Order: sequence, then structure tokens, then C-alpha cells
Amino acid sequence: MTDTIDTAESRDFESALSETASATETALERLIPQVDGPESRVVDAMRYSALGGGKRVRPFLIICGAEIFDVPTEQAERVAAAAEMIHTYSLIHDDLPAMDDDDLRRGQPSCHKKFDEATAILAGDGLLTLAFEVLGESETHPLPAVRCELTVALAKAIGAQGMVGGQMLDLVAENQDLDMPTVTRLQRLKTGALIEFCCQAGAILGQADEKSRHHLHTYSHDLGLAFQIVDDLLDVEGSTEEIGKTAGKDADAGKATFVSLLGAERAREQAGILADQAAKHLEIFGNKANLLQKLAKFVVERRS
Amino acid sequence: MTDTIDTAESRDFESALSETASATETALERLIPQVDGPESRVVDAMRYSALGGGKRVRPFLIICGAEIFDVPTEQAERVAAAAEMIHTYSLIHDDLPAMDDDDLRRGQPSCHKKFDEATAILAGDGLLTLAFEVLGESETHPLPAVRCELTVALAKAIGAQGMVGGQMLDLVAENQDLDMPTVTRLQRLKTGALIEFCCQAGAILGQADEKSRHHLHTYSHDLGLAFQIVDDLLDVEGSTEEIGKTAGKDADAGKATFVSLLGAERAREQAGILADQAAKHLEIFGNKANLLQKLAKFVVERRS
Repeated sequence: MTDTIDTAESRDFESALSETASATETALERLIPQVDGPESRVVDAMRYSALGGGKRVRPFLIICGAEIFDVPTEQAERVAAAAEMIHTYSLIHDDLPAMDDDDLRRGQPSCHKKFDEATAILAGDGLLTLAFEVLGESETHPLPAVRCELTVALAKAIGAQGMVGGQMLDLVAENQDLDMPTVTRLQRLKTGALIEFCCQAGAILGQADEKSRHHLHTYSHDLGLAFQIVDDLLDVEGSTEEIGKTAGKDADAGKATFVSLLGAERAREQAGILADQAAKHLEIFGNKANLLQKLAKFVVERRS
Repeated sequence: MTDTIDTAESRDFESALSETASATETALERLIPQVDGPESRVVDAMRYSALGGGKRVRPFLIICGAEIFDVPTEQAERVAAAAEMIHTYSLIHDDLPAMDDDDLRRGQPSCHKKFDEATAILAGDGLLTLAFEVLGESETHPLPAVRCELTVALAKAIGAQGMVGGQMLDLVAENQDLDMPTVTRLQRLKTGALIEFCCQAGAILGQADEKSRHHLHTYSHDLGLAFQIVDDLLDVEGSTEEIGKTAGKDADAGKATFVSLLGAERAREQAGILADQAAKHLEIFGNKANLLQKLAKFVVERRS
């Protein structure tokens, strides 16, 4: 089991998390500029969803990962903004009536409720597209080869053999009795692959060696699983108000989750073990990986 | 007015068009491989829509444009496949009930009718993502800088300031009295920007000079406009069977089009003038641009 983070350490971590969240917000604000004309509605919707706050865990992974390899902050922040655009697009499309049909996201009306379905579909498409534009531009890294590596890694993580495939699997599997290997595979595709990209992005920007990348890979594997288990726990134990999206949806939809398979107690225990393991994988980086190690604890102790 | 293409010339053109269509089909077949597991459903949907035929005008623009600059065929075919993935994704999302709500595409059930809405949304997302993966990979061009240029140019063409913005404008403008400048701007965003990318792709791959790019730009401008005018004419004059999608939709939706603004006769005349102009812009390339010049005539003479 993880120890509770002591108060001073926890304060440092929380302030680092809020600093990267605010840097990401600034980058997103700049990278999604408003446009003229009636089509500005789609940009309003993109901004509404992307600038809507959130914990910005994925940007934190990228920015802290980049610090290990002394990558310039501006580069990391652009990739962080791109990853958050992708995360936001996936939430907008997932919330659509034809998909998970959720009216609430981050405590606010979801994009199609605030605007309409057509605008929400286009806003998701626009964010997905913009993320690749940002990665391709020279401001992201002086070496085009690095930008191409980021582009291909992101596309693989979120395509039909990554996030989109995971979302499909989730829809196909609804109301089916899934076993642990299938639920684990679903998580790896649906949320794990993008988390893996975020954990690797700093190493790509910093042109890190294979050994470093391997350790980040094992970290992201355990962190991603722990994150999903806690998400499943919060869906059962949290209130809609606390988690900012409709609670109890998985059980209502008859979805097999880590909690339905393991029970809440064992699931929480498992998340703690995974978080400890995740932190250990980063020991080779010494102090430089402290924030990422603390993130693993934060992920299992969060209440929303 | 354009002259009717004489029969032998027309046969050469038609066979070139069908050759590039078949090369594009082969590339798409290879680049959208089937996956294992229940999530293969989304890949089925991607393949259903992307491999469903069509005239492949955008790939033709890319492949013929690349020939002007002696670009290796394999490179051009990969970019052609990527552009066709984008075109297909835009059709899938446009056909959704929340958007244009069309049950028919290329004479077949549209993606959400063949599968379901959720799968269609994901198939579009998957194709959009895969297009960027293909552009980023080293097989597309040995120089990463060229791949980044393609990535950024495509993203700009299809994002909120391009195709997605045009689609938004189209939805916002429904049932409004639009004037010629607005309808022209709508076309430039919704279909013109991707056509412009396709016309420039060969020049990017071939690292062509500014002058060549400028001539391709003026060609794509006139060609894109002519193409859209004829699309509007076919919507009025063609049968559903001929055009492979529901005919008469624009008028039913009260949409302002080139035809509703100019009348059919002047619209057809205008399309002819634009096609002639388009062909003239390419005279600097001599014989090398013959097929692109013939395409301009084909575009205004097509019946579907």
C-alpha cells in the first residue's frame, strides 16, 4: 500500500501540478485563437471544452518527463497542449449521444449540450487536427525528425490500434461479461496508449536513450492501470458533484470494470501496489523524476 | 466555354484517372490493415468507407502533380492515400444524422447506416488520425522536413480555418440568404482548402520553387470553384442514382448555392470559364501538366 504523502511534500506536488496546469492553459489559449466569421462557433466550442480546466495530468506527465532530459519548457508545453487537445477531443466525442451520452463534463454541460451535436463533432475533429498541426510546426522542436517521431507516436497511440480501438472495444463489450485480461486490454488501448505517449514525449524531445525510454514505458504501464482502477472506484464511490461527470454510469451500463471484477477493496489495494511499482521504475533518474513519482501516489489518492 | 474533349484524348485521360484510382485503392488497402479483436469493427467501417471507390479526384491531383516534379510514385501514392482518408473521414462525419443526415454515399449505405453512429464517428476519427500517421512516416519522404511540411499544410487545410470551419459555416448558414462572396468563401473553406493541399502536395514532395507553387495555387483556386459549381448543378440536375448520393438536398435544405444564386445556365458557363482558366495556369509546366489540364475539363463535364 502507498503511504499517505506528508503535508509539505504534498503541497509542493500540488503547486507543481497547478503550475503545469496553468502553463498548459496559457499554451492552449494561444494555440486555439479565435477566428472571424460565422464559423467561429466551432472555435468557441473547441475553446469551451479545451480551456475548461481539468487536472491536466497528461500535460504534467509531458512537462515533468521533459524536465528529466533538460528539454526547453516551451517545447514541452506545446506538446502538452497538443496532448490535451487530443484528450479533450476524445471526451467531446465520447460524450455524444451516440456514444456514452453524457451531459456533464468537468462539472459543466458537455460540449454537445452547451452547443449542439454537429458543433461538438466538428469541435472534436478540429482539436484532433490542430494537435497534429502543433506537433508539425518548427516551434515544437528544431529537428524535423523529432517532430515526425512525435507525430507518428501520437497517431499510433490514438488511432484504431490505440485510443479509437479502445473506445470501439468499450462499445462492443457493453453488457458482456469481460474477464480481467480483456478489461486490462481495453484500458491499455482506451486510456493507456495516450498516457504512454505522454510519458515518452519528454524522452522523444530530449532524444533519450533506449534504457530511459524502457523505464518510462514500465512507469506508464503501471501508472495507467492504477489511474483507470481509481477512475472505476470513483465512478462507484464518488458523487457526481465530486467527479464532475455523471457518477455510477459504469454499473448502470452493466460494464465490467476493475471494481466489478475485483471488488472495491482489492481494486484499491491493487492500485496502491501499481503506484508503488510505477514510482520504483523511475529510480534510475534520481531526483529528476521526483514529481512523476509523486504523481503516482496522487493518482491513487485523488478524490476526483 | 470548354470544348468537348475529343474521344481519343478523353480515353487517355479516363485510363489515367482509373489507373491512379486503382493505385490509390491498393495503397489504402495496405495502409488500413485489418486488426484482431472485437475492435476490428471500427477498422471494418474505415475500410468500408475508404475502399468504397469514388472517382479519386484528390489522389489524381496529387499523383499527377507529383509527376511534374519527378517525385517517386510510392511517395505520391502514400500522400494520395492520406488525402483520401481525410476526404473519406469528412464524408462519414458529414453524413451523420446530426450533420447532413444522408443515408447514401457513393451509391451505398453511408457508414452510420451500414454500421451505427458510434462506429461511424470512430471510423472518421480513425481515418483522420491514420492520415497523419502516414504522412509522418519515413516511407512518405526521406526528408523529415518535407514530411513536417506536408503534415502542417494538411492540418491547416482541414482544421477550423479550413475544412472543419467550412463545414461549420455551412451548418450555421443553413436557411440564410447568402450572397456570392459568402458562398464562395464557404466553398473555399469546405472543399477548396483540401483541393489546394492536393494540388500543392507534389510540389512539397518535389521541393519545388515558389513560382511553381504559385501557378498550382491559381490552378487549384479555379479548379476548386469549378468543381463545386458542378457539384451544385448535379445536385439539381442529376438523379440520386447517377450521383450516388441523395439528389436535390441543397434545395430541400434551402441552401444558397452557386446554382441558386446564378441560375443553372450561368453557373455552367462560369464553371467552363474557370476550367479553361485553370488549365491555362499550368502552361508553364508544358506537357508535364497535360493530365491536370484535362482534369479541369473532366470536372465540368462529369455527370456524377
